[in-house]
Amino acid sequence: MYTFKDATKEDVDNVMQKAWSAFESYRSFSIKQRAAFMHAIANELTSHASALIPIAMAETHLSESRLQSELTRTVFQLNSYADACEQGNWLDVRIDKVISDRQRPRPDLRKMLIPLGPVIVFGSSNFPFAYSTAGGDTACALAAGCPVIVKAHPAHAQTSEEAASCILKAAKICRMPEGIFTHVHGVSFEVGKELVLHPLTKAVGFTGSLSGGKALFDLATQRKDPIPVFAEMGSINPVYLLPEKLSESALDQAKTYAASINLSVGQFCTNPGLIIGIDGPDLQTFIKNLGEEIKKVSPSPMLHAGIAKSFIANRSKALAQNDVHTVAVSDTRPGENESYPTIASATAQAFMNNPVLHQEVFGPYSLVIKCRDVAEMKSVAEKMEGQLTSTLIATENDIQQNLSLVDKIKDRCGRIILNGVPTGVEVCLSMQHGGPYPATTDSRFTSVGADGIKRFARPVCYQNWPDNLLPDELKDGNPLKIWRTVNNQLTRD
Amino acid sequence: MYTFKDATKEDVDNVMQKAWSAFESYRSFSIKQRAAFMHAIANELTSHASALIPIAMAETHLSESRLQSELTRTVFQLNSYADACEQGNWLDVRIDKVISDRQRPRPDLRKMLIPLGPVIVFGSSNFPFAYSTAGGDTACALAAGCPVIVKAHPAHAQTSEEAASCILKAAKICRMPEGIFTHVHGVSFEVGKELVLHPLTKAVGFTGSLSGGKALFDLATQRKDPIPVFAEMGSINPVYLLPEKLSESALDQAKTYAASINLSVGQFCTNPGLIIGIDGPDLQTFIKNLGEEIKKVSPSPMLHAGIAKSFIANRSKALAQNDVHTVAVSDTRPGENESYPTIASATAQAFMNNPVLHQEVFGPYSLVIKCRDVAEMKSVAEKMEGQLTSTLIATENDIQQNLSLVDKIKDRCGRIILNGVPTGVEVCLSMQHGGPYPATTDSRFTSVGADGIKRFARPVCYQNWPDNLLPDELKDGNPLKIWRTVNNQLTRD
Repeated sequence: MYTFKDATKEDVDNVMQKAWSAFESYRSFSIKQRAAFMHAIANELTSHASALIPIAMAETHLSESRLQSELTRTVFQLNSYADACEQGNWLDVRIDKVISDRQRPRPDLRKMLIPLGPVIVFGSSNFPFAYSTAGGDTACALAAGCPVIVKAHPAHAQTSEEAASCILKAAKICRMPEGIFTHVHGVSFEVGKELVLHPLTKAVGFTGSLSGGKALFDLATQRKDPIPVFAEMGSINPVYLLPEKLSESALDQAKTYAASINLSVGQFCTNPGLIIGIDGPDLQTFIKNLGEEIKKVSPSPMLHAGIAKSFIANRSKALAQNDVHTVAVSDTRPGENESYPTIASATAQAFMNNPVLHQEVFGPYSLVIKCRDVAEMKSVAEKMEGQLTSTLIATENDIQQNLSLVDKIKDRCGRIILNGVPTGVEVCLSMQHGGPYPATTDSRFTSVGADGIKRFARPVCYQNWPDNLLPDELKDGNPLKIWRTVNNQLTRD
Repeated sequence: MYTFKDATKEDVDNVMQKAWSAFESYRSFSIKQRAAFMHAIANELTSHASALIPIAMAETHLSESRLQSELTRTVFQLNSYADACEQGNWLDVRIDKVISDRQRPRPDLRKMLIPLGPVIVFGSSNFPFAYSTAGGDTACALAAGCPVIVKAHPAHAQTSEEAASCILKAAKICRMPEGIFTHVHGVSFEVGKELVLHPLTKAVGFTGSLSGGKALFDLATQRKDPIPVFAEMGSINPVYLLPEKLSESALDQAKTYAASINLSVGQFCTNPGLIIGIDGPDLQTFIKNLGEEIKKVSPSPMLHAGIAKSFIANRSKALAQNDVHTVAVSDTRPGENESYPTIASATAQAFMNNPVLHQEVFGPYSLVIKCRDVAEMKSVAEKMEGQLTSTLIATENDIQQNLSLVDKIKDRCGRIILNGVPTGVEVCLSMQHGGPYPATTDSRFTSVGADGIKRFARPVCYQNWPDNLLPDELKDGNPLKIWRTVNNQLTRD
């Protein structure tokens, strides 16, 4: 069914030259014009829903309703990031005016973010719309003023083609320069490599596996001129069950977590893959009921054959480790390319001594870790790698009694959830979707929410420029009416 | 004279364990407490000026007045970054409140920057106070909530000791935890390597050479968990002379630039090492007069023997390149460890074909590049590596006629100056001291100005936390009265 040719080295060079030429004009487009383009893409996606969704259903096995809501999310992202782009707070404008009555006068200094240049986007396998071709990285890069080159995910290349054609239609309507957006195919790693190593490439966005993201990061940092790579590489999203809260709500938590583990066949990067509690009757109740719930969940087709194969292999590997016990599996045997909902358990010691148990099993699988006491739970938290999220199931008293545990957990994640589930990533400015390595390659930035625009920009200071030669963002009269820090005070005047 | 022992691997481990333990309490200190500590350091430096300055004079050969003004700058940095720390804008607080009347309710989400952890600072050779032990990187890291470990620059280790003792005194006065600041010595690269590779190290600040900065960057990015390195690695700071302005002011520019090239014996990272003009009578006038001015400048002692040796070697190497002509040297022959003020010239073709001519000659040396026309000047700009600064000497008409040249220049620097000199880096929020590689390893951050605090912090999102368990920065009542973005609107309420 896959009928696309891998881009050659010559294709890549050609694409990058065109992207650079587009950059030379797009960089000067106003934030209003960029926002209009993003709204136009959102409109095209909306009006092509009836074409996009069936193709994505065929390629990913995701349900119509899931894909419909993902498309709605994608449109919301484009529209809300467009609004943020136009609001201009992300530009971080700082102005310090001349001080002439000083021994050595201070010159006029004005700083704002400017775009980095062409950005390569590698979309995810699990979000064919929201974190792929017309997804978050593309939206952020366009808002920042950067042309985008998307390498289609081979698992949904036709969906990607369709989304790309929506973007190109919007580009035409908005009279964007040729090269503002390009779509290339590549099954081979070589295509990605050529894109990342091209001298005109200035940044990379990636959503996928640790091995894939790390390979791109290594290529990019070892370039003659290193460039930033924003790779979101998955996570096991530990959930810490604190004693008082667990005792109050073991049954509810079991139900809630069974649902979270199986949401979208466990194929979310915030899937709770690790649940840590203190051994005793409450944890036993939790485990038993979580197991009962999981037995009732039927296997479902996974995104594609490769994902299903990896799930089966990683699950088997995890279950085969010493001191890992299978708690429960679905009562129904899976068919081809289907998931096999599974809960396992292990002791804290087994977890701390075995790095395999720290690895993500992408799919509906979760490992429960039994600690002897809170001190051992703290040791587990200390041994934890960087995560997108960590969750505390805790009463206020649990928190107050364990402040240093909370600090350790916070140190190792980008989002810390209290009494909730990690699945469900809101698109808003306060979202942090990112975290210390290996969750991402750069914990200082987010890939969800309009703060993600800043990934693709850098500050430039204008010294001693007359008002009429400055960009509108920096002019004295503040014609764009954006928030700016003038002589250390935030103001819109 | 150098009497300090290199830290051993065990010393480094011991230091890092103590720094981590300090981090566990310091991270929760309020921004007011952090600011008070920084003000106390500033006070100690001020009251120890009479001890600090003679030691620095002996170690660096910088003049008393230069060192006095550098100490004043260092104190200003600490005080002004302390004010910015307490003002809290840098925390980038974003709050999105619950939306309960949605199909799936939106939870309460609140984001702020939190400190990364212990930071290693490698101070510069050329700023023994302002970008060394108690300098900009240390001030920014402390403001962010990070303990600091300074590796003393071997060229001014005694000055570094004295500054460290001021910091430790301030720490005692402010009852800071042990390990909040540590000073280690190391002549061998191994000490730096151990510090950067230690698992408890979370970020690195560096000011120095390209080879030194790149080596640390490579170590840090190839760690099991890569960490950020903010290396400011020098620059040749190109100056573009546009025709109309040059014709108006060739003599004045020659005088101004002779002074800038020789400021502090040419030992500023923003020293103008490259001046690009269009060949013709105006450029000839400029070159001739710049040469006359340089002849009058006497050689002076450089910072230390190593710097002087490098200057002489790099200068000789540059002058020995094909098609490089010596325009003028000081009328006085230099003594031992002294500079030798020099102006050379070359054609644009020679510059574009020879990477050696793109390398910094740290000291009072500048190369004038003669272009045939504006088109060739544009080619030169295109071939330029990343720079801390670029300068345009231009009338408004020159700018309007050459907008694409201006874009090319802006793409390759962090600060773009119009009709001024690059030396003189103001300490204020609008300053950008940073630029595309190889000027720095991360063009998205600055090492001068309070925005530098953000280098040592990352965002964390709190989901669904009750008000009383949130940090003050995120509480509903905004007890710290800081600016925050609440439901997409900036507010102090």
